[in-house]
Amino acid sequence: MKLYTIKSEGLAHNSYLLLAGSEGAVIDPRRDCRVYKHLASKNCAKIKYIFETHRNEDYAIGSLELAYSTGARIYHGPGLEFKYGETLMDGQEFNIGELRLKSIHTPSHTDESMCYAITDLGAGKDVALVFTGDTLFAGDVGRTDPYGPKEAPRLAETLYNSIFNRILPLGDGVIACPAHGAGSVCGGAIAEREETTLGLERRQNPAPQKTKEDFVSFKIGEYHERPPYFRKMEEYNLNGPPLLKGLPNPKPLQPKEFTEEISCGGVVVDTRSPPAFGGAYIESSYNIWLEGLPAYAGWVLPYEKPILLVLEYKKDLDKAVPYLIRLGYDAITGYLSGGIDARYNEALPIEHMGLWTAHDLKEKLNGNITVLDVRGGDEWRDGHISGALNIHVGPLEEHIKEIPSDRPVATLCKVGLRASLAASILRWTGFKEVYTVLGSMTAWKNAGYPTVT
Amino acid sequence: MKLYTIKSEGLAHNSYLLLAGSEGAVIDPRRDCRVYKHLASKNCAKIKYIFETHRNEDYAIGSLELAYSTGARIYHGPGLEFKYGETLMDGQEFNIGELRLKSIHTPSHTDESMCYAITDLGAGKDVALVFTGDTLFAGDVGRTDPYGPKEAPRLAETLYNSIFNRILPLGDGVIACPAHGAGSVCGGAIAEREETTLGLERRQNPAPQKTKEDFVSFKIGEYHERPPYFRKMEEYNLNGPPLLKGLPNPKPLQPKEFTEEISCGGVVVDTRSPPAFGGAYIESSYNIWLEGLPAYAGWVLPYEKPILLVLEYKKDLDKAVPYLIRLGYDAITGYLSGGIDARYNEALPIEHMGLWTAHDLKEKLNGNITVLDVRGGDEWRDGHISGALNIHVGPLEEHIKEIPSDRPVATLCKVGLRASLAASILRWTGFKEVYTVLGSMTAWKNAGYPTVT
Amino acid sequence: MKLYTIKSEGLAHNSYLLLAGSEGAVIDPRRDCRVYKHLASKNCAKIKYIFETHRNEDYAIGSLELAYSTGARIYHGPGLEFKYGETLMDGQEFNIGELRLKSIHTPSHTDESMCYAITDLGAGKDVALVFTGDTLFAGDVGRTDPYGPKEAPRLAETLYNSIFNRILPLGDGVIACPAHGAGSVCGGAIAEREETTLGLERRQNPAPQKTKEDFVSFKIGEYHERPPYFRKMEEYNLNGPPLLKGLPNPKPLQPKEFTEEISCGGVVVDTRSPPAFGGAYIESSYNIWLEGLPAYAGWVLPYEKPILLVLEYKKDLDKAVPYLIRLGYDAITGYLSGGIDARYNEALPIEHMGLWTAHDLKEKLNGNITVLDVRGGDEWRDGHISGALNIHVGPLEEHIKEIPSDRPVATLCKVGLRASLAASILRWTGFKEVYTVLGSMTAWKNAGYPTVT
Amino acid sequence: MKLYTIKSEGLAHNSYLLLAGSEGAVIDPRRDCRVYKHLASKNCAKIKYIFETHRNEDYAIGSLELAYSTGARIYHGPGLEFKYGETLMDGQEFNIGELRLKSIHTPSHTDESMCYAITDLGAGKDVALVFTGDTLFAGDVGRTDPYGPKEAPRLAETLYNSIFNRILPLGDGVIACPAHGAGSVCGGAIAEREETTLGLERRQNPAPQKTKEDFVSFKIGEYHERPPYFRKMEEYNLNGPPLLKGLPNPKPLQPKEFTEEISCGGVVVDTRSPPAFGGAYIESSYNIWLEGLPAYAGWVLPYEKPILLVLEYKKDLDKAVPYLIRLGYDAITGYLSGGIDARYNEALPIEHMGLWTAHDLKEKLNGNITVLDVRGGDEWRDGHISGALNIHVGPLEEHIKEIPSDRPVATLCKVGLRASLAASILRWTGFKEVYTVLGSMTAWKNAGYPTVT
Repeated sequence: MKLYTIKSEGLAHNSYLLLAGSEGAVIDPRRDCRVYKHLASKNCAKIKYIFETHRNEDYAIGSLELAYSTGARIYHGPGLEFKYGETLMDGQEFNIGELRLKSIHTPSHTDESMCYAITDLGAGKDVALVFTGDTLFAGDVGRTDPYGPKEAPRLAETLYNSIFNRILPLGDGVIACPAHGAGSVCGGAIAEREETTLGLERRQNPAPQKTKEDFVSFKIGEYHERPPYFRKMEEYNLNGPPLLKGLPNPKPLQPKEFTEEISCGGVVVDTRSPPAFGGAYIESSYNIWLEGLPAYAGWVLPYEKPILLVLEYKKDLDKAVPYLIRLGYDAITGYLSGGIDARYNEALPIEHMGLWTAHDLKEKLNGNITVLDVRGGDEWRDGHISGALNIHVGPLEEHIKEIPSDRPVATLCKVGLRASLAASILRWTGFKEVYTVLGSMTAWKNAGYPTVT
Repeated sequence: MKLYTIKSEGLAHNSYLLLAGSEGAVIDPRRDCRVYKHLASKNCAKIKYIFETHRNEDYAIGSLELAYSTGARIYHGPGLEFKYGETLMDGQEFNIGELRLKSIHTPSHTDESMCYAITDLGAGKDVALVFTGDTLFAGDVGRTDPYGPKEAPRLAETLYNSIFNRILPLGDGVIACPAHGAGSVCGGAIAEREETTLGLERRQNPAPQKTKEDFVSFKIGEYHERPPYFRKMEEYNLNGPPLLKGLPNPKPLQPKEFTEEISCGGVVVDTRSPPAFGGAYIESSYNIWLEGLPAYAGWVLPYEKPILLVLEYKKDLDKAVPYLIRLGYDAITGYLSGGIDARYNEALPIEHMGLWTAHDLKEKLNGNITVLDVRGGDEWRDGHISGALNIHVGPLEEHIKEIPSDRPVATLCKVGLRASLAASILRWTGFKEVYTVLGSMTAWKNAGYPTVT
Repeated sequence: MKLYTIKSEGLAHNSYLLLAGSEGAVIDPRRDCRVYKHLASKNCAKIKYIFETHRNEDYAIGSLELAYSTGARIYHGPGLEFKYGETLMDGQEFNIGELRLKSIHTPSHTDESMCYAITDLGAGKDVALVFTGDTLFAGDVGRTDPYGPKEAPRLAETLYNSIFNRILPLGDGVIACPAHGAGSVCGGAIAEREETTLGLERRQNPAPQKTKEDFVSFKIGEYHERPPYFRKMEEYNLNGPPLLKGLPNPKPLQPKEFTEEISCGGVVVDTRSPPAFGGAYIESSYNIWLEGLPAYAGWVLPYEKPILLVLEYKKDLDKAVPYLIRLGYDAITGYLSGGIDARYNEALPIEHMGLWTAHDLKEKLNGNITVLDVRGGDEWRDGHISGALNIHVGPLEEHIKEIPSDRPVATLCKVGLRASLAASILRWTGFKEVYTVLGSMTAWKNAGYPTVT
Repeated sequence: MKLYTIKSEGLAHNSYLLLAGSEGAVIDPRRDCRVYKHLASKNCAKIKYIFETHRNEDYAIGSLELAYSTGARIYHGPGLEFKYGETLMDGQEFNIGELRLKSIHTPSHTDESMCYAITDLGAGKDVALVFTGDTLFAGDVGRTDPYGPKEAPRLAETLYNSIFNRILPLGDGVIACPAHGAGSVCGGAIAEREETTLGLERRQNPAPQKTKEDFVSFKIGEYHERPPYFRKMEEYNLNGPPLLKGLPNPKPLQPKEFTEEISCGGVVVDTRSPPAFGGAYIESSYNIWLEGLPAYAGWVLPYEKPILLVLEYKKDLDKAVPYLIRLGYDAITGYLSGGIDARYNEALPIEHMGLWTAHDLKEKLNGNITVLDVRGGDEWRDGHISGALNIHVGPLEEHIKEIPSDRPVATLCKVGLRASLAASILRWTGFKEVYTVLGSMTAWKNAGYPTVT
């Protein structure tokens, strides 16, 4: 038996390739799926099955993509009218080499959620490993808000039942393989450590330490960000996302072609760092740093418009493209050939963004400015600048009217990356004087300046 | 926390790189150690510590090599006069980022054996993971014969105590990371599955199911191969193997230079496949197939002579060199430039080896031949050809007089690879007519020919 | 201006990628054409034009393949009814960045042959470089036999005229870029040196030193091998070869599947070395060593049957597949998974080939054997073994009846590779006792044994 | 014969690896010299000789480095007391496989300049190829100012004589391989085209079209930049540069460590783009863009201080390090780990640079500002902004007093890269208000704004 964990960075999504002898199965494949086939082939194995733990909402599932190139069969849990693949019942079994995979229906995060228990028949009858999807993470459990607040109590209870009645009884010694690691929006407190077992979770995971009542009320009280692209993902992952048959190949666009594409409705995504963006950028760009695409593109980018990229280096395409298609942004028209330099060399218009250090902010603080902290509620509550306004960067556009339009705005987050995205949004929604605070709260605290909680 | 398992193929040796934040530790590094440094650097971490689980006997430890290039400190267990590194007591603790590592003295396979338990302080106080060295494997436990048969009962008892009193009490939910996987000579029945936990081992590993008495008598009764290079490894791993500062770089040798090196005492190792070797080889070569070097070079190659390689492709050097230096064979003078073709193109002498199929053997069986089965005792007992002689390929040279010298010999193993090594040994020890049986017992059985047990 | 020479090994075919500014052109692309696009893209250029110097007969042209992925336009010389691309007249001009390309109609090797002269307008009006196709090579000139012996005198004269009237007058200082390098079947005496100029060729190339009469009679008297696949290439390169849209991806076949594919008409091509092939092979295989595929596959393999590969290493596919598709062998069904070992492990039938050293041959020479020298006429005339029979390996099957069938045959070539192919042909056409002489004439001469001329 | 041209980007330096059979020679190796050995080894050849065409002044020669790892012998021309290698006379011959190399003493750019003519003995007695060093380039000839203006007339005359008496007589058909391509500071008008011949140069190169008198007066009148690092290179290339035995390995430095290294005298080189640098930089940095290091580091960086790097991506080290050591900057202490973000996250001081577009400049032009154009004299004369001040960026520090210190300065070059370097110099020499004009004269002209000549 060989187990490969394939991570989608930024989403903190874990998919798994399980191989035994000449057979293999993939759990929750991502859309850029060549990696599974490559690893299977290196081990002289063939991918026979694809198992989905649930209808994911934070990325577009790659099952159809992988089935297209391998012929593998796709399986889902019961209770949803999936438009592709086959539906499993609780307790169905599959052989993968000398392994036995058994489906465990675990209504929890969603009603159709499935866990998959693996027994190594060569070693005995005990379950050795369980793929826990969004039911149980290292140090956390799944969200119970996907059907809205009304359904949350019901989901919280079924989640509790699934964990206590179906998963933990498999035994302390069972290795747990969850669908997400630390940093995922699908859990708030997932541990940095990737390796875990049911025993460790039973004893150390805070959620299962509670009574059912406490558990349910804790889950109901929890707040999780819910980026708008989740709706699209739910639709995609029910019907099957469009088949790409490989990665899109954005075109190099000369500065004038790039400008034309903008006037035809293209949305500019600039993945450079805040100082570089601040130094020179194209009007109406979204500044989403490269590694921030998985987490923030889905908050702000529309699906109906083509995407135009401004990159630091051409090589950054190799990351930007998979990051975007994992969220279903398939229409990536092109990138600015030659980068931002090509733009200003052509004397085409350029914008600058104000850039402040923490010290600059401190100095201006008493003046007539708005300090806009775009972090999430938890981060805000952990300590912020007195007098600041808190609006999360994700839904910032909807809340734009809450920001006074008659004075300068300084945007803040943890290290300045989301602040720069927020600043870019403010600018193209009409704010004249906007400053990104470089280093943001990290620098502010390192400078020893005061915060309130 | 990030855990990387670095495997030495053929030896089925597992070393581990454990990273947390900007710090890292390596458990039982191998000698070709660039991989640890590379992975640490990719994660912006620095290797601070090297922990050895015990004085290994099946490979030359890479601690000095890795310490040379990283400045990391080296630690051993107590009870042996190591000539390098520092000695730990039971219960010493180290911090690696947010992890706590604690040494557990577990006399077992050797008296100074150490396990290392890891607690993720961010998650709680439970041990999350334990490096079990040669104390506990997936599905097996360590050997108790390193000090000879007299000491075996004592070691078996301390091993039993260490497992039951020190390791299993850490909890079922603890992930176990042993020093070896399936195929290692350090355990006879290690599982194919790499992922395991103390819970799984407590319930499914056959050894801990026994009473102490049964356990001890089972361990005493066990037979394990003990290749002669183990002595050299014990010496190396006590005093520290020679510092290589990088991999040796064997020279391309023209056919005549190669011949000269042979006459100066060089030992020829031909890593080609049995049919290629059979078709044309150089007198007095050892035919050890490329992937067989880790397991068989240490049985037959002397340490005091330089090694000369005959390869199918030049690229095979990239495997042959690390395989050899892991066993302490550092004096790899060169390889035959242009391969065996260069030899016969120069009209230098060439030998052929007889090659039989299973069908050929069947036909000749009633004649006046010796059928020499060079597999291990367990394999032999599982089924062999009636009338065959069984001598393990490893110590074949010492037993050469047991083989009738007046008739043809057909060599057999499982698939013909060890048979070809045996045939090569027979030929240069004077046997005139020797045949490697291609496919050996696998082909024999697939052909439906009879075996006895 | 940047000039890349892309070589097809074995065919000694040179194609060229010429870049200037953001534009590029390819001369005589090969079918595995990703390399041109990759290099153009690295230089931020786009391939606009594809120029063919003539209807090639030694490989399948990649123009359609490259046009498919780049949109480039394809141009040929006049006088042939090409079924794809556009036809040029003498003297047409194209701009590639700051370069001017001018077509020069040079009937020579074929009637529609074109050379392409490049002027660097930035430097002056002189021609800087000329693509000479099969008209002029370094040290040699093109073949004049493609239309058969009757047309040869006419072609020889037009070739002479084209060289003297159209090419050499461009000036001594012009760099010449021919379609072939040393080792091509399209010229007998092409120099090892790749860099040349019209001045060097005017003074040092033996052909242009002759009078027209001598030149014509020399060309008529020349003998060149003409492998049968040339007919297929002529047909392909007139109509356009099938569009592959990428490289074929042969399947791994288990031994029994492989056997089934043979019984369905598949032809086995075994690319291993003569000793490995001799040690164990599958009946009715062709033994064409890996690097020999470009030159010898086209002599012996049929187009109407699928190809089945036996390889030393799986990685050898990366060479075998492009080598075969360059000759139009697109139907590569699969390869024997696990190699020849997998075959004999299954107890499926295996053949051995006799393998002799030069010394063995010397010893047996006086007996009742046929010594079959399968080299070309020129090599044969340079020195062979007295009493040997000379039949070129290419058309060996047609001449099989000229070989006495009542006695052993020893096959010879220069180093034994073609000898092993010949031996493989002899065996499956019914010869019982066949020996490949390892090292062949090279070993024979190195051993100091006598030859006659 | 195989000829590889190995280019050092930025320096536009060409070195050559010439292989024939199993032997090779390198002409003018660079210091990061693994490439030569790698290519030779791929061709199964050994580098026997290293030939220097002259004591180079624009980079540190790699002869000692390459000789250290290959054992090759080093040769120079006569007339200088080199402290390493061996001195050649005119007309000495060496065999490299079937090639003959002959030294031609060509006093020209320097007195000891050597050309090396190659004859392919297999093709005839004509010279096929000549390595022309800094004597003759494609479209240009070498500089005659290395010994200062007094010696220039003498050098110009010997250069003329060497070209006409020693090089051009080798014949029009000889391929010329010069030491530099377009963009080198060693010639002002070298052609983009890399392939050339003596015939093309005889007819198209402007220099040899002149009479000797015109030639000499033209060369005397020529102006070439002479960066100060030339002196160091002359010293290094006479005595042999320090032996590196591999590339230096700069350390990752945490922000505070970085600051400490600055206070210990380290010089900060920031290789990011002008907008990124403008957005946030460390006081007293030199902003030399990555690809500008080869050409501009030698103008401004001192040799006696250690270098500290600020990079966009860590991967940029792979370029920065070779670029610097080619100029003899071996003391590269480290790079800012985490980049500029790490700096401002720590609340350490940050500077901003003013960034103007061409339109901003136009608007401010009539105000009280200095427009500082830092391009070379030729570029300046080709068209500049009326009223601008021209000081070349290279020696800017020496001329700093010529710039009015009482008003804002806007820096300009061709596209803004040198302008940003100039701006960084101005800032740390005390100018308060400095603006880099993004896109500089390119944007200015593209905007349609007026220039004077």
